[in-house]
Amino acid sequence: MYHHFTKTKLHEVSATLSKVAMGVIPAETVIRGATLVNVCTCELLENTDVAVWGGRIALVGDASHCIGEGTEVVDAAGKFIAPGFLDGHIHVESSMMSAGEYARAVVPHGTTGIYMDPHEICNVLGLDGVKWIMEDAARSPLKAMLTVPSCVPAVPGFEDTGAEVGPADIRETMQWDNVVGLGEMMNFPGIVNGDARTHAIVGETLAANKVATGHYSIPETAQGLNAYIASGVRCCHESTRAEDALAKMRLGMYAMLREGSAWHDLVEVIRSVTEHEVDSRFAVLISDDAHPHTLAGQGHLDHIMRKALSYGLDPIRAIQMVTINCAQCFRMDHELGSVTPGKCADLVLLDNLEEMKVAKVWINGDLVAENGKLTEELAPYTYPERAVHTMHIAGEVTPETFVIRTEKAETKVHTMEVMGGKVNNFMHVREMTAVDGKLCADPSRDILKAVVFERHNETGKVGYGFVEGFGIKNGAMASTVAHDAHNLLVVGTNDEDMAVVANALIECGGGMAVARDGKLVALLPLPIAGLMSDRPVEEMTEAVAAMEAAWAEIGCTMPSPFMTMALIPLACLPELRLTDRGLVDCTTFRFLPLEAE
Amino acid sequence: MYHHFTKTKLHEVSATLSKVAMGVIPAETVIRGATLVNVCTCELLENTDVAVWGGRIALVGDASHCIGEGTEVVDAAGKFIAPGFLDGHIHVESSMMSAGEYARAVVPHGTTGIYMDPHEICNVLGLDGVKWIMEDAARSPLKAMLTVPSCVPAVPGFEDTGAEVGPADIRETMQWDNVVGLGEMMNFPGIVNGDARTHAIVGETLAANKVATGHYSIPETAQGLNAYIASGVRCCHESTRAEDALAKMRLGMYAMLREGSAWHDLVEVIRSVTEHEVDSRFAVLISDDAHPHTLAGQGHLDHIMRKALSYGLDPIRAIQMVTINCAQCFRMDHELGSVTPGKCADLVLLDNLEEMKVAKVWINGDLVAENGKLTEELAPYTYPERAVHTMHIAGEVTPETFVIRTEKAETKVHTMEVMGGKVNNFMHVREMTAVDGKLCADPSRDILKAVVFERHNETGKVGYGFVEGFGIKNGAMASTVAHDAHNLLVVGTNDEDMAVVANALIECGGGMAVARDGKLVALLPLPIAGLMSDRPVEEMTEAVAAMEAAWAEIGCTMPSPFMTMALIPLACLPELRLTDRGLVDCTTFRFLPLEAE
Repeated sequence: MYHHFTKTKLHEVSATLSKVAMGVIPAETVIRGATLVNVCTCELLENTDVAVWGGRIALVGDASHCIGEGTEVVDAAGKFIAPGFLDGHIHVESSMMSAGEYARAVVPHGTTGIYMDPHEICNVLGLDGVKWIMEDAARSPLKAMLTVPSCVPAVPGFEDTGAEVGPADIRETMQWDNVVGLGEMMNFPGIVNGDARTHAIVGETLAANKVATGHYSIPETAQGLNAYIASGVRCCHESTRAEDALAKMRLGMYAMLREGSAWHDLVEVIRSVTEHEVDSRFAVLISDDAHPHTLAGQGHLDHIMRKALSYGLDPIRAIQMVTINCAQCFRMDHELGSVTPGKCADLVLLDNLEEMKVAKVWINGDLVAENGKLTEELAPYTYPERAVHTMHIAGEVTPETFVIRTEKAETKVHTMEVMGGKVNNFMHVREMTAVDGKLCADPSRDILKAVVFERHNETGKVGYGFVEGFGIKNGAMASTVAHDAHNLLVVGTNDEDMAVVANALIECGGGMAVARDGKLVALLPLPIAGLMSDRPVEEMTEAVAAMEAAWAEIGCTMPSPFMTMALIPLACLPELRLTDRGLVDCTTFRFLPLEAE
Repeated sequence: MYHHFTKTKLHEVSATLSKVAMGVIPAETVIRGATLVNVCTCELLENTDVAVWGGRIALVGDASHCIGEGTEVVDAAGKFIAPGFLDGHIHVESSMMSAGEYARAVVPHGTTGIYMDPHEICNVLGLDGVKWIMEDAARSPLKAMLTVPSCVPAVPGFEDTGAEVGPADIRETMQWDNVVGLGEMMNFPGIVNGDARTHAIVGETLAANKVATGHYSIPETAQGLNAYIASGVRCCHESTRAEDALAKMRLGMYAMLREGSAWHDLVEVIRSVTEHEVDSRFAVLISDDAHPHTLAGQGHLDHIMRKALSYGLDPIRAIQMVTINCAQCFRMDHELGSVTPGKCADLVLLDNLEEMKVAKVWINGDLVAENGKLTEELAPYTYPERAVHTMHIAGEVTPETFVIRTEKAETKVHTMEVMGGKVNNFMHVREMTAVDGKLCADPSRDILKAVVFERHNETGKVGYGFVEGFGIKNGAMASTVAHDAHNLLVVGTNDEDMAVVANALIECGGGMAVARDGKLVALLPLPIAGLMSDRPVEEMTEAVAAMEAAWAEIGCTMPSPFMTMALIPLACLPELRLTDRGLVDCTTFRFLPLEAE
């Protein structure tokens, strides 16, 4: 199923590779005279050639004798050659782009492999969605290695998703070709408390001798973290404090140090290795979530490494953290992650290390990018009809749909207070006065109405609540990017604008929308599962900028406000969340009525 | 087949382990207050507890809450706790002891796992012999992890062995329970030159996702070493120069730094990491071959680490080199090699790091050794009849059998010159005068007669030659430890004594013998495959000392002369060797006549 992430199996070509190394058969490509970033010994080795045949490295050293008729010789004098960069944990859907377009954006920045966890599309379309995004990825040279979503739904019993994934699904998918492990096990409470089903999901992964990736997002590094790691989960990208990242490494867990578009953890967590005299083999740099404007404007792992250098990390160790360390985390270092004989010829040529400026990129021995662009156009990929028709909402949505009725004249409601750039929110109780028996948004107190519509199976479920912190005076926003169930989330000051944005998304198949005074201000269609577009990164960057401008126009000055909004339904984060089933107290895991006692 | 090297599968017990870490279920054992040798981060962490349940580590840190009724609490204050030591490459047969007795000798020194390559017994008894030695090992707590012999016979076409191992055997054995990889691929010329069958033997290993171990014994680190590594071989223990070990690490090959009883390479090769500022994750310390007197008198990996410390290595890095580095080499670091949650509770408690003095040893959570002794006696193991009747020599052996006839009165013969403590020998051409039409030993010129009898299948093949360098004036020695085919090798000054030692070994089922003036001076029976005894290490140490004394008595002052003698038939070493088929020129791989032109 799908493409393999190696062009050839080593044991099928090793005899030929040996002959190439001996000069008996000419190499296909020889890259000459670069300084090798040796990630095995953490050294720079000047004037090193690399000979390639059949997608793999045959020789590293002096390759003069490997050059024959037909050998392509690349002069790399004055440059640096390193293993292709690996992102150990990413959700492609966060880029709002198709997997192919994502690859087109990141490969020219030196990324040759990603460990992707497509749990967004899986929540909408199930394992079919996972298959389709892998097919989408397969048209690009990028090695898309799949970690199967482990938590679909994220918080069972508190939300409605388009699919569920259980232990039997994990057992089956572990046999798929490109599966290398399990996606982030977010249900750390289940693991920590010994829940059998949650352990079985990790267990099916271990039984298949694959790697379970983690998500342990609380600042507790004693019994809870031990209980989590004892389950066999091998890595975690959720540390936000240096001491937590260090505690994980000390407990044999790969600490994936994150610098996402919206989560700027690196400045803090990199101190785990820059301020301690430690072996850093358990440290990995990852992105988790990257938006189009980050990828287009700043880059991918090259950008994250530049950040790391600015925080005091040395460049060779930085490169180890996106190559051999990541490959060892996934126990794939016999295939990937170093420029050594027999490994896949996934190579990056850099102009310099200070700026991590990428000149050329090879994957499986093929030159796939130079001067910031792919060398070949990608074949188109069309998602099946089901994937682009995912707005299944019961009945019509009108302004009346948004009305919240009450029997009291004066009442108290639970509200959620969001903060820009933070994932956590806060629960409050606010006094509210009914208007004609209805509870309304109160922009004067920055209290907006929030509504979540189940959109997968026309169940008709709708959750109602109030949210504070966006600062919007007049208007409404809607999004089908609404973690992790990705139901239709609408926030606004008035029912009319809320109906406008909701219906705009229902009509276009999902995405994001902003309206004011009964008219759309901006619309970003994301027709693939309501999460992604098939448009290229340049267009998406502009579209996202237009969306941010629309938010600003209606009064919100938060950075990436749609990200903050998208977390409103994510019931595995503290303190209060709103799903299609209602308000969830995420400290006690109980539903709360909208009106407080 | 055989015991697994874990007591439990992690996914079967992980839910319970998590509960133990949380204090919901009491730990079976808590080791309290030691300083942890953290091999993940290369740090010492004071006052660290380790909680154990079901053979695995549940928690590392403060384990107060894990102690309940029935928990065994071990006070380890003032001591150091480290992962159990792993020997990445050993031949148990070199100890001349059964695998059980070998384990009894090494476990109290902190060794909890070995990667064994039983290619000696395999040459005699084939894969049956491998199964039996694994059964023998299974009665001890030591984790005997099997790397299947790759080169049986060592030099096909030049010697007769009791068995052959081909690619189909490798394919089959890779499915055996305790198989973790392929034994040392000594046929590096075959690999380097792209020989299909040799690559297939490595290839079947890679196809099974297991680790192929190596043997690249020449001081060439350019195209040949690249060609060898490109085959997928992952480690090599044959470096004798620091620059070779470093070159291997730079090419992504684990450099196994050897300190065997007869091969004292460490003083030189450790400089690869002590004199270069390199990441040492690719360095591993191993023994390869250890004799009873080394194990009894000096120790095992603890001894090798003491040596390494005396050469300037720091103790934490030394411990990394027998724990996590080795586990990562075999891609088994999710099971072994660190004191972290979920891993096997293979633990060593040390009184101090300067002397690496081992106080207690746990394997799979069980206390298996303390104060230098196993805590429990081993069950007996009896090898099958076929394993202890391996002397199958055609016809009777009499003094007449050793006669070498010539048609010339004056002639020239090829001789092998051996040197104590070295594996290589030298070829010479010496003038010789016939006595009654016979060519005889000439002790005045230190030229002895050497004869090799095929002993596996009564083929009647006998090879004749002359050897220099032992310094023996009167007497004869015989051995069935005669690498790698382990035929019956006899060396002596006169045919009578040669017949005495030969018949002594035929009678006792193999071993080593020394005779003078028609009488046995010493006899060391090794009835198991003619290689090993079932006697314990104390007895074996005395017996080997008696054998060395006998050699000295007849005039040989070489250290461990029987080791040097045992290499006479090993036709993969330069320059001239003698097998049961005759003299082999090992630079050209051609048979040579005894008499030179």
